[in-house]
Amino acid sequence: MKRLILLMYCPDKKGIIAAVTNFIHQRNGNIVYIDQYVDRIQGAFFMRIEVEGDFDLSNFERFKTTFNKELGEPFQMSCSFYLADVLPKMAVFVSKYDHCLYDILAQQSSGKLACTIPFIISNHKDLEHIAKQFDIPFYHIAVSKDTKEEAETKQLELLEKYEVDCIVLARYMQIVSSRIINVYPSKIINIHHSFLPAFPGAKPYHSAFQRGVKIIGATSHYVTEELDAGPIIEQDIIRVSHGHEVKDFILKGQDLERIVLLRALKLHCERKIMTYNNKTIVFN
Amino acid sequence: MKRLILLMYCPDKKGIIAAVTNFIHQRNGNIVYIDQYVDRIQGAFFMRIEVEGDFDLSNFERFKTTFNKELGEPFQMSCSFYLADVLPKMAVFVSKYDHCLYDILAQQSSGKLACTIPFIISNHKDLEHIAKQFDIPFYHIAVSKDTKEEAETKQLELLEKYEVDCIVLARYMQIVSSRIINVYPSKIINIHHSFLPAFPGAKPYHSAFQRGVKIIGATSHYVTEELDAGPIIEQDIIRVSHGHEVKDFILKGQDLERIVLLRALKLHCERKIMTYNNKTIVFN
Amino acid sequence: MKRLILLMYCPDKKGIIAAVTNFIHQRNGNIVYIDQYVDRIQGAFFMRIEVEGDFDLSNFERFKTTFNKELGEPFQMSCSFYLADVLPKMAVFVSKYDHCLYDILAQQSSGKLACTIPFIISNHKDLEHIAKQFDIPFYHIAVSKDTKEEAETKQLELLEKYEVDCIVLARYMQIVSSRIINVYPSKIINIHHSFLPAFPGAKPYHSAFQRGVKIIGATSHYVTEELDAGPIIEQDIIRVSHGHEVKDFILKGQDLERIVLLRALKLHCERKIMTYNNKTIVFN
Amino acid sequence: MKRLILLMYCPDKKGIIAAVTNFIHQRNGNIVYIDQYVDRIQGAFFMRIEVEGDFDLSNFERFKTTFNKELGEPFQMSCSFYLADVLPKMAVFVSKYDHCLYDILAQQSSGKLACTIPFIISNHKDLEHIAKQFDIPFYHIAVSKDTKEEAETKQLELLEKYEVDCIVLARYMQIVSSRIINVYPSKIINIHHSFLPAFPGAKPYHSAFQRGVKIIGATSHYVTEELDAGPIIEQDIIRVSHGHEVKDFILKGQDLERIVLLRALKLHCERKIMTYNNKTIVFN
Repeated sequence: MKRLILLMYCPDKKGIIAAVTNFIHQRNGNIVYIDQYVDRIQGAFFMRIEVEGDFDLSNFERFKTTFNKELGEPFQMSCSFYLADVLPKMAVFVSKYDHCLYDILAQQSSGKLACTIPFIISNHKDLEHIAKQFDIPFYHIAVSKDTKEEAETKQLELLEKYEVDCIVLARYMQIVSSRIINVYPSKIINIHHSFLPAFPGAKPYHSAFQRGVKIIGATSHYVTEELDAGPIIEQDIIRVSHGHEVKDFILKGQDLERIVLLRALKLHCERKIMTYNNKTIVFN
Repeated sequence: MKRLILLMYCPDKKGIIAAVTNFIHQRNGNIVYIDQYVDRIQGAFFMRIEVEGDFDLSNFERFKTTFNKELGEPFQMSCSFYLADVLPKMAVFVSKYDHCLYDILAQQSSGKLACTIPFIISNHKDLEHIAKQFDIPFYHIAVSKDTKEEAETKQLELLEKYEVDCIVLARYMQIVSSRIINVYPSKIINIHHSFLPAFPGAKPYHSAFQRGVKIIGATSHYVTEELDAGPIIEQDIIRVSHGHEVKDFILKGQDLERIVLLRALKLHCERKIMTYNNKTIVFN
Repeated sequence: MKRLILLMYCPDKKGIIAAVTNFIHQRNGNIVYIDQYVDRIQGAFFMRIEVEGDFDLSNFERFKTTFNKELGEPFQMSCSFYLADVLPKMAVFVSKYDHCLYDILAQQSSGKLACTIPFIISNHKDLEHIAKQFDIPFYHIAVSKDTKEEAETKQLELLEKYEVDCIVLARYMQIVSSRIINVYPSKIINIHHSFLPAFPGAKPYHSAFQRGVKIIGATSHYVTEELDAGPIIEQDIIRVSHGHEVKDFILKGQDLERIVLLRALKLHCERKIMTYNNKTIVFN
Repeated sequence: MKRLILLMYCPDKKGIIAAVTNFIHQRNGNIVYIDQYVDRIQGAFFMRIEVEGDFDLSNFERFKTTFNKELGEPFQMSCSFYLADVLPKMAVFVSKYDHCLYDILAQQSSGKLACTIPFIISNHKDLEHIAKQFDIPFYHIAVSKDTKEEAETKQLELLEKYEVDCIVLARYMQIVSSRIINVYPSKIINIHHSFLPAFPGAKPYHSAFQRGVKIIGATSHYVTEELDAGPIIEQDIIRVSHGHEVKDFILKGQDLERIVLLRALKLHCERKIMTYNNKTIVFN
């Protein structure tokens, strides 16, 4: 018995749920999770289903093919099928901050973050010792204005070689260019250290301090070409007061960043997110 | 026995606390609350003190005069003195939304909001029945592009006639001009229905929905000439999801708005806020 | 076009969703909301559906009868059917605290709380003026140890006379006996001023202060015979510190109480709650 | 220039602040932080001060002696003096859960948790690899009903040998006896995986699930002889719903546990906590 996860969307019309659940029951699938969402403004229907059944690889392929033919085409569905025990391969990009990296590696090695981590890339060597602590390959690829294109070529080679499925920018302080973004649409997850859309770009804690806000936040989102403007996966906040200086904002914020990023990564790795119209639909 | 509240700030130097507490003890004042804050970047010292003592009006005036002379001048202090039992007079400006108005009037009439409310001004008649329910004078002053100046003249007349101390814009959907702002610096409190500085201006819930945020907020701030950019008093947030439509954002947000606004009004009326460099220092 | 709301649960088995959605489509119903939940431990299936259709009263009755016969019996369903535009009649019980009462009446009169309020009952006269402000009948029924049975007889007469559907105990400081509870199972909603199961019973803020907690809470729940032990609908919290005294706990807590109670009442009135095994399932 | 931290409490009377600040100014100390709290019910005064000055070891000792003589005795003060750059030595006790341990070691090695960690003690070997990753001595001391006394003797030997200042029970699943508690009063910090006083003792997530709560919590507190009843340092919560099973409570709760525990440890290590009447006063 294996577990299959299906994410799908299509134009909303009557009978989709009945058709899909009938299809699964006829193949002796046992629906252990079903959730759906209708965007009435867009007229779009979204569904996430987990099915237990005899999904060896050939059955899995057959299920996909038949589903796409019998339901996908007539209902104009966009479908993604996953086997729950095939973990995504996630590359980690970092610079000098270690708090997100520690959380990612600790939770992955405890089995709480359902992915494999083939390697870590950094534009600095500062965190190499942490990669060693967790026995993960570490690639130092320096990035400067002049070497950026060359650096991204190296990065793409590594991503391809390891057959990476998704990328986390764990406080990677460089802007990733469209060369990489286009290869990984809705597959690159960033953590931004503000409550977007407030304070996009550089030094958000300094700007928040300057503005005198009473709450600071962190936002995890998919990376798109427009900086800090991609689909938001998760956000959270913490209170601050006039008594806190920028360094307090940073320390408090770092706890938020890692919590928010890890929540987003878990949702992504557990195939609980769909993106649509630059927003996320999170089945949780 | 009466309670005196002192708010003060001055350039930071050694001995301020000792000097002030000594001054009070020598006059048989009993300090029941003292809190201070030092802005090290600006080199500024802020303090809030509550003193119990024999403060009839002439003693109160004498305390102020002597304090200003003996401490205020040598330390270059800016001081505000209040008697706790002299409540501020707060005018309420509204348009058509009733949720903040209900909370203000209910809490004021229960004694939880320490102010008097001489009147309500609105550019619409929709909420007149609520003013009647609570037996507060209601002035309908319509505002259009052409009549704005004339309307503000009427508003100023009322504010002056009733000797108003402060103004709350309880979802008053008009921009207040500098004619009024200049008369009430750090005395006009607005509630903005977003987590500032995100989504300033009109229709923030629509913008938040459009952006696909996972958290919405409300911000209460003092009104300055730049729209939605004055010193922030209080903010709070509530989670939303892809399943919520704009109307859900609005309904959830309205609960936030009234809670955040009332917290700010209570802080203001209890003389717990100082403003400085377009920020608030909240002694709470 | 009217909107029908269906709440149902039954033993979990394959094909329920397909059967129900097929049934509705065959009668030209348009499903505008569907959500389901499976309790795998208990093997129980729960669903909430909103359907738009031609539900005049005779169609509504026919829909119920046919549904119960064709699906309810074979699947052993327990079903509740409502028309969205038939508002529940909710009686309000209060004592001396006004904060919850103000919120209930203000939100009901603004149309945000989808119910009618036939009357208010109180064991004290303190809040009669608020009933008058909102033009709702107010019945003062004093309760003492000796008169409790007699008082409850009067309460039951009023409840019956006005055909009340549900009751809110809006800080009603009396214990309601099983005589009333049995007539309104899962229909009496209480607000308790603590984070249950911490601090049940009397004076929870005093106990919380005594214990030195850093967070206080409020809990809205259905009333059952065991005090403060019924199914929890909604809870929320607010931070406190060593600097807060019991009176601060009470003031901060009252804001929580009214927010939490109103959220629970809205969920109840909008037919979004099912109870099962002394828990609530909240479709939100 | 070094930084001295002073924590003190005494019976409340006039002139304490003036006396203390005068004392410091006369010795050319520069007060960089001062905060005080008065418990009016108990008539107790609490203060935390940070002073910059020429505090080499002999000056530090002289400051303490003089302060105690000139102010401590006349005002009946209880004082604790610390040098900010002398970090406390904290022993870590764990069992099988790794999430708190990872956070403690990662944050300590990043310099965000201001302590040294001389060793880790565990009653199981499961987490030895993590100790190795971070290069911290790991002592496996098995504990059974019969060997508990012997085990605690070994623990005490290690604590004494390494001159440990404080102990963190990072999900250490054993009850620490009064033999150890008495040596470390207000120095042993535990994380309990519930919102105390709700759900003390074993399996709080299971009890929370059983009760159907809508919010779960975590509590960090000092260990006293009564189980889970010591002074609370920090608490926080996260929302849950009917859709979450016990395993979801546990996963969500673990994120809370580590965040709450680390906040408490930082406060303790930065000398920001006083205990009094089984409560904490947290200067933050």
